[in-house]
Amino acid sequence: MIELTLLGTGGTVPLPGRYLTSLLVRWSGHEMLIDCGEGTQISMKERNLPVRHIDAIAITHFHADHTAGLPGLLLSMAKADRTEPIVIYGPKGLHEMMEGVRLIARYIPFEIEEVELEKGDSFTVDNLQITSFPLRHSVPCIGYTMELKRTPRFDKEKAVANHIPLKYWGRLQKGNTIEEDGVIYTPDQVLGEERKGLKVVYATDTRPVNALAEAAKHADLLITEGMYGDEEKADKAKLNRHMMMQEACLLARDAEVSQLWLTHYSPSMHDPFQYRDVCRSIFDHTVISTDGQHTDLSYDHGEQ
Amino acid sequence: MIELTLLGTGGTVPLPGRYLTSLLVRWSGHEMLIDCGEGTQISMKERNLPVRHIDAIAITHFHADHTAGLPGLLLSMAKADRTEPIVIYGPKGLHEMMEGVRLIARYIPFEIEEVELEKGDSFTVDNLQITSFPLRHSVPCIGYTMELKRTPRFDKEKAVANHIPLKYWGRLQKGNTIEEDGVIYTPDQVLGEERKGLKVVYATDTRPVNALAEAAKHADLLITEGMYGDEEKADKAKLNRHMMMQEACLLARDAEVSQLWLTHYSPSMHDPFQYRDVCRSIFDHTVISTDGQHTDLSYDHGEQ
Repeated sequence: MIELTLLGTGGTVPLPGRYLTSLLVRWSGHEMLIDCGEGTQISMKERNLPVRHIDAIAITHFHADHTAGLPGLLLSMAKADRTEPIVIYGPKGLHEMMEGVRLIARYIPFEIEEVELEKGDSFTVDNLQITSFPLRHSVPCIGYTMELKRTPRFDKEKAVANHIPLKYWGRLQKGNTIEEDGVIYTPDQVLGEERKGLKVVYATDTRPVNALAEAAKHADLLITEGMYGDEEKADKAKLNRHMMMQEACLLARDAEVSQLWLTHYSPSMHDPFQYRDVCRSIFDHTVISTDGQHTDLSYDHGEQ
Repeated sequence: MIELTLLGTGGTVPLPGRYLTSLLVRWSGHEMLIDCGEGTQISMKERNLPVRHIDAIAITHFHADHTAGLPGLLLSMAKADRTEPIVIYGPKGLHEMMEGVRLIARYIPFEIEEVELEKGDSFTVDNLQITSFPLRHSVPCIGYTMELKRTPRFDKEKAVANHIPLKYWGRLQKGNTIEEDGVIYTPDQVLGEERKGLKVVYATDTRPVNALAEAAKHADLLITEGMYGDEEKADKAKLNRHMMMQEACLLARDAEVSQLWLTHYSPSMHDPFQYRDVCRSIFDHTVISTDGQHTDLSYDHGEQ
């Protein structure tokens, strides 16, 4: 299961009741944050989400509305007696931005590992696989695909048919390969067919590019920007490399995602809900997110 | 008149409903901000205070709870189409901290002038005189005394007695010196006695040192930290160079200030109001501030 909480839905500047776009991902006792604009830690505290345990932070790009909350968040972690190291991922330029973070928050007592991702780089945090993909914004920017793989069911009949000693069933089921007396036993000898895992895609800020459409293909959830809803802003969206709500809905529909969450609204958009009907006329499973938008995604939507 | 708004009352980390300590000062169409922790701009927006027009920002010290809101605030000013330069004041180390700010907020289109203050340095913003004084904290830290001078009344009898030509009265009243045909006319020839102006003192983070007691002498308003109220925290306050509420009240009483606002509460202090009675038993004119604490200070409390 993956638990997702959108800590804010604003773009550019925070507004009362609309913190900057940031996603908290929790699964199997682990936590990852994507983007960290000013106020992210306050949004977490408003939701009783402790800041102390975040394993990793992934940054999409180095506009301050996606990064300026880092000094305060790291300081809060320190004040909460965190001692474990943290890993921060981001595109090229991460080290330079983190130099700025360290000049503002000087007294961080735990280790911060910085990883600059190259095009298409993947990393894992425990059993969650995160893959970056390029977006098109006014500065270098990447999106993240998060995949929680699902192990196939144990197939007892297959294990028996393959003459696998009973004592190895447990370890093989867990994915281990075993060699004994020159015989090699592999997990596929006891496991059934591949099962669909969970895929969540986060992409902001960007134009609706192919790489995003590809990454989003059949995602259980796509979280992406809907900077503007007013068609008169279409040229501005193109110019500043942002995405219209309508473009995001078209992309989600064509990528056949299960659900779309729109976020990263322009501060000029006072009421994103006014565009709900037009969005749903394009793609019915569109959510006009608000701060605190939350879901628990489980495999096959309820199947054990 | 000086209008004062405490944008937050928290110390160390922001909490829901308690932004970090920062003071907005407004007078004669001018604005100055003292300290700018994470969330300062959000607090301003919650109070419909536009961020665009701030003339100057004064920083007390370089702990992130007093500075980490700068990248976002400057970015918000830029998005509000500010083009006028801004001046940022602070103790030695300001340039280095601002290097961090610039690494996080890279696209600030207006000029930022940085002024590192030496011990006791003064500066003016329009007709407000601001004087720094040293505090005692775990890192170099300064307080700020703000003084709005009051011009003496025009004294018609004095002007007549001094044989000042009527045509010069207006300019002399405004403080100009005039020379004509070898005769020098000075403002004191038409002005009455000096009148008490307004004095506001802001000091956090610090122990209750002499320099603060001196600066606070007869202030109309002293705004200072009350990090802890529980007497069991007295040793911790000394160790971390913070001030107990009770120490602040004693200092305010001895300095004979008109009013004391306590702020910069430890996140461990859930209800600062529980210490109101003990504070007022020491100094009756003590306010346990909350976010948004506001006053308009006028000369002689109402006199025209």
